[in-house]
Amino acid sequence: MKKRRFHLWMCFCVSLILMIPAASSYAEEGMWTFDNPPAKQLQEKFNFAVTPQWLDHVRLASVRFNDGGSGSFVCPRGLILTNHHVALGQLQKVSGQGKDYINEGFYARTEAEEMKCPDLELNVLISMENVTPRVMAVVKKGMSDKVALKERKAEIAKIEKESLESTGLRSDVVSLYAGGEYWLYRYKKYTDVRLVFAPEQQIAFFGGDPDNFTYPRYNLDMALFRAYENGTPVASKEYLKWNPAGAGNGELVFVSGNPGSTGRLSTMKQLEVERDIVIPETLKLIRRRLSVLNRYAGGGEEEALQATAQMRSLENSLKAYQGQYNGLLDRALMAKKQKEEHDFRTGVAAKPDLANKYGKAWDEIARAQQKRASRYKELRYRSLRASRIASLAFSIVQYAAEVKKPDGERLDGFHDSQLESLRFRLFSPAPIYPKMEIALLADSLRESLDELGPNDVFVKTALAGRNPADVAAQVIEGTRLKDPAYRKELIEGGSAAVDGSDDPAIVLARSIDPVVREIQKWMEDTVGSVMTSSGEKIGQARFALYGKTEYPDATFTLRLSYGPVKGYAMNGTEAPPKTTFYGLFDRSHGFDGKPPFNLPARYIEGRNKLDLSIPINFICACDIIGGNSGSPVINKNAEIVGLIFDGNIESLVGDYVYNDDNNRAVAVHTGGMIEALRKLYDANALADEIERN
Amino acid sequence: MKKRRFHLWMCFCVSLILMIPAASSYAEEGMWTFDNPPAKQLQEKFNFAVTPQWLDHVRLASVRFNDGGSGSFVCPRGLILTNHHVALGQLQKVSGQGKDYINEGFYARTEAEEMKCPDLELNVLISMENVTPRVMAVVKKGMSDKVALKERKAEIAKIEKESLESTGLRSDVVSLYAGGEYWLYRYKKYTDVRLVFAPEQQIAFFGGDPDNFTYPRYNLDMALFRAYENGTPVASKEYLKWNPAGAGNGELVFVSGNPGSTGRLSTMKQLEVERDIVIPETLKLIRRRLSVLNRYAGGGEEEALQATAQMRSLENSLKAYQGQYNGLLDRALMAKKQKEEHDFRTGVAAKPDLANKYGKAWDEIARAQQKRASRYKELRYRSLRASRIASLAFSIVQYAAEVKKPDGERLDGFHDSQLESLRFRLFSPAPIYPKMEIALLADSLRESLDELGPNDVFVKTALAGRNPADVAAQVIEGTRLKDPAYRKELIEGGSAAVDGSDDPAIVLARSIDPVVREIQKWMEDTVGSVMTSSGEKIGQARFALYGKTEYPDATFTLRLSYGPVKGYAMNGTEAPPKTTFYGLFDRSHGFDGKPPFNLPARYIEGRNKLDLSIPINFICACDIIGGNSGSPVINKNAEIVGLIFDGNIESLVGDYVYNDDNNRAVAVHTGGMIEALRKLYDANALADEIERN
Repeated sequence: MKKRRFHLWMCFCVSLILMIPAASSYAEEGMWTFDNPPAKQLQEKFNFAVTPQWLDHVRLASVRFNDGGSGSFVCPRGLILTNHHVALGQLQKVSGQGKDYINEGFYARTEAEEMKCPDLELNVLISMENVTPRVMAVVKKGMSDKVALKERKAEIAKIEKESLESTGLRSDVVSLYAGGEYWLYRYKKYTDVRLVFAPEQQIAFFGGDPDNFTYPRYNLDMALFRAYENGTPVASKEYLKWNPAGAGNGELVFVSGNPGSTGRLSTMKQLEVERDIVIPETLKLIRRRLSVLNRYAGGGEEEALQATAQMRSLENSLKAYQGQYNGLLDRALMAKKQKEEHDFRTGVAAKPDLANKYGKAWDEIARAQQKRASRYKELRYRSLRASRIASLAFSIVQYAAEVKKPDGERLDGFHDSQLESLRFRLFSPAPIYPKMEIALLADSLRESLDELGPNDVFVKTALAGRNPADVAAQVIEGTRLKDPAYRKELIEGGSAAVDGSDDPAIVLARSIDPVVREIQKWMEDTVGSVMTSSGEKIGQARFALYGKTEYPDATFTLRLSYGPVKGYAMNGTEAPPKTTFYGLFDRSHGFDGKPPFNLPARYIEGRNKLDLSIPINFICACDIIGGNSGSPVINKNAEIVGLIFDGNIESLVGDYVYNDDNNRAVAVHTGGMIEALRKLYDANALADEIERN
Repeated sequence: MKKRRFHLWMCFCVSLILMIPAASSYAEEGMWTFDNPPAKQLQEKFNFAVTPQWLDHVRLASVRFNDGGSGSFVCPRGLILTNHHVALGQLQKVSGQGKDYINEGFYARTEAEEMKCPDLELNVLISMENVTPRVMAVVKKGMSDKVALKERKAEIAKIEKESLESTGLRSDVVSLYAGGEYWLYRYKKYTDVRLVFAPEQQIAFFGGDPDNFTYPRYNLDMALFRAYENGTPVASKEYLKWNPAGAGNGELVFVSGNPGSTGRLSTMKQLEVERDIVIPETLKLIRRRLSVLNRYAGGGEEEALQATAQMRSLENSLKAYQGQYNGLLDRALMAKKQKEEHDFRTGVAAKPDLANKYGKAWDEIARAQQKRASRYKELRYRSLRASRIASLAFSIVQYAAEVKKPDGERLDGFHDSQLESLRFRLFSPAPIYPKMEIALLADSLRESLDELGPNDVFVKTALAGRNPADVAAQVIEGTRLKDPAYRKELIEGGSAAVDGSDDPAIVLARSIDPVVREIQKWMEDTVGSVMTSSGEKIGQARFALYGKTEYPDATFTLRLSYGPVKGYAMNGTEAPPKTTFYGLFDRSHGFDGKPPFNLPARYIEGRNKLDLSIPINFICACDIIGGNSGSPVINKNAEIVGLIFDGNIESLVGDYVYNDDNNRAVAVHTGGMIEALRKLYDANALADEIERN
């Protein structure tokens, strides 16, 4: 599944990987911003003239799920389609007390039955404004990278704050083309979001981890939410009309969604550090986390249920990183990258003005990456974010300290424009499982000890001579942070409340805060500032050399991809453009119905009601990446024909390179969704609401 | 499909690749002779005690199809099950005059309707006798390799002839373990074989060339013949009982059949010559032949029908050789082979007696292979065997010359014991398509010209200043060899008749005979004799070092393989142990029913009659190779549970190495065969005959 790999413990690392746009586009490549669609390619290759009206309509019907996915309005009363796996975290949060909506599914037959999600925020991109000149203007000649970065950040924070105050809209300044452009994106925010429909996880994620990131697939990975305002369903004028016939083989389709991050044109040195240090450490960390959760889930049914969402997310990450890693270990791919970089640098070197302004950027990045590598383990393992309590405590401690500073001087994540969303997350009433928290925190402490040794300042501070299990038990058992009201009390009480708290989680967070700040600050000063300024130089060199004919790397902002429905060569033969309900039953029977290839009872009993020849999944050559989960697939008429939920195994290397031979996006078919709703879920009313408007 | 890749134009080349047995067996590896079954492994790993009675029963129920496949008796009245693709050549020969049994299928509702095959010979292995001492005894100390080879061949011919005369049974001396052992195999021969049932090729070969050699599959690749003697069905006391439930996941099964040839322990030098010369030339040749046939088939429906079987066979070979080639290009595999050889040679070198007797064999082989490489193109392209007429003419010319010599001095293929089978083939009344023959012969001449140049003695002789198209037209249009009676007349007339014939095909064959003989003889003297004697040394060194704990390389003689029904890792996920009729419909709908994923009308119309959950294909870890097509898959009770028809794409490297991680044999499920016979083919009588005995 293609949910954004976006864990708290990765936030900072991700923000350090700055991306550089591509030198030349291949067939169907690209995640294009809505201000710069691939109009020429669409016209020449598909005879399709994309209009501003079409773009506005699609953009306003597209929804970003702030916990890491995408979606779209599919009716005029606020109904939003996304993936089951995007909804999974919310499903878990509303489950419990004998209700297991993950395994049993959920269907609200009336609006009154729709179930409010505790901490889901959705965004719709209302406007885009190029603020590059204003951001650039604050950087004066002769400024050091460090000062320039600070000035730039201050200006960005100012722009965001002004916009928030003047429009009331969420306002994010987005750096595109590695700082080649800065855009102010304004979002309409929805925080009253209610669950309408989710099938059983077993059909949404049929085939489980083995089938994850593969094709052919047979997954009904869908969920429906409804956005409310003032207690009433939102009047979503801009919604996508439903086309249950789907798209034919070879037909041009589009994906409108929020790809998380790509490094398509990272410098070679960046890729090498990723390959040799970042990804191996990440894989090790994920495996360790999985093994802790696995042990915990073995404790009983309740424990298994609690651990499910996080394990799923980690397994998903593991397979994704493994795929990326394989890509980086591929010599042919690295040779291709090397050639691209060589050609680009040669082009810059050949023009004295460009060479003078930008020529040193690659070496600057290489030096910064070398430094990053030298302290990467500290960055990674001076952290307790594996535990939600520890993570909340740490955010609260940093919040109290940061909000006192001028906006421009704060750590990323604490700017005024970000505070509302942060508070929404901090005050989430989603349940916390103390036993699981103890297991995770204890192992996280043990991991820091294993990786950094007993003399590391972080380890010494956090353990203070005690053993990890004792610290974890004492912190989790004693903390009041399980109660959202106490978190609110601390935040509202500011520094005084936080500094005076004797809550053991807060005490722990306070003690490690200076140590963590040191490495964060060192990374930002030593690596981040260089990556920003040198990345910007490379971005500008690209504009100077190639013009704005390219798409920027993904930044979890709205993008448009395009490409035909199309099979590909795999396993010595051809993958079909689509799969049907027949295949779902074949794959289940092929494994004698054993998990993860078992089917919900509804499917076994209802088999004869289905037209088995109706497609359930299909593939297209649209260029997507994690974060695109839940994106609508639309045709030329902007009708929805499918729902992105994954990429094939060959697409995993897409973080670094798009290969149109076999990179395919995998989607749920609109026909299959309606067939299941009507024939298996007795949900004709919902199907009617979707189809008949 | 796993029909033996056995084309006339390859006979000689294949016979030159002498094989050396493996140093150590891996899990489920091995194609074991029935005198030396893997009893220890079966006992230890599967708690199965294989008995002589079990082995005799299975052996006597197993049938070899002499045109390159395997089969088994499945009822007491001579009914033999094999693959549709093994039957394909015969189906083509009985089609024509408005009848298209390939595309329409065939079912004889009564024995009277069963259709006699023009030139099909089946063999059942009646007895096996170790004649190693007798063959070895003729080689005296101090004999040159060339003389030793001659003596050995003479003795083998003598043994075969004596046995034929004393028993009336087909008698072949088989060299196993690269000459480590010689065995006299006696076969009961059946030449009155009649077609009983074949489905439409589109269901037997559903998915066509793309799905060939892959899994998951959905092929009803079956055909039924009946063996007759004296106009009556054979009383086949030893037949396999039918088990329609098939074998469960993890269940131990066996394959009894005739794997064609493997080079599992070829020396490194042999593998290098295969990789660098033999396989690239072979791939080029196959592609050329396919392109000629493709052009020919484009001429109309009749032409397409004529070319089908040969094109299928060539496409099959192309994919198989490509798979082998990929294996040989795999550095890890070659490194593994290199290590095996190194360990073996080190072991031999460490024992002075072994070193003295056998130590030089590897270098001798290396030198011989070097020589082989130096004239490989001449061997390959001094041939007109692409044309069936030219091939018949050439065999007749050589026949007349060879039979005059003492048996031991004849070219391989013309020993007394082989003559009856050869005559059977020469006199086949199977139709010849003159237009296709002209196309093939013309291109074959052009190919010799392209590859060898205009000054090559073969090219000069064959063309004699004319152009290839003219020669081909003149030969094919003028020849009387299209008539089996004339072939018989020439064979019966002996040298006088052949030398005196002015038939243009015979004239051409006579003219090139000395040139072809020269390269054949040079290869046999310079390469073959060394490969035999040095191969034998290596074989004996293996016995001396490791004992007879191994299986010999495949030689198109009866072997037993074993292993569980078992999925494997593929495409980032797991392949299911079996597929069902559901999957057949899924794959067809996935491609909108477009060829080669179209279904016969019978399947579309009869869909609702089928229990779609019944398995159609399944896989097991049994070690097989081309020639095993049509082999029965049996359980511990010697009940038939499946019908081998292919290996997966990962198995193609099995010519050189068996990898139990993912090498799988693909079989038709007994349940699926019965379901189709009863529900779709209205063949209850036939199903009853199979199931109820």
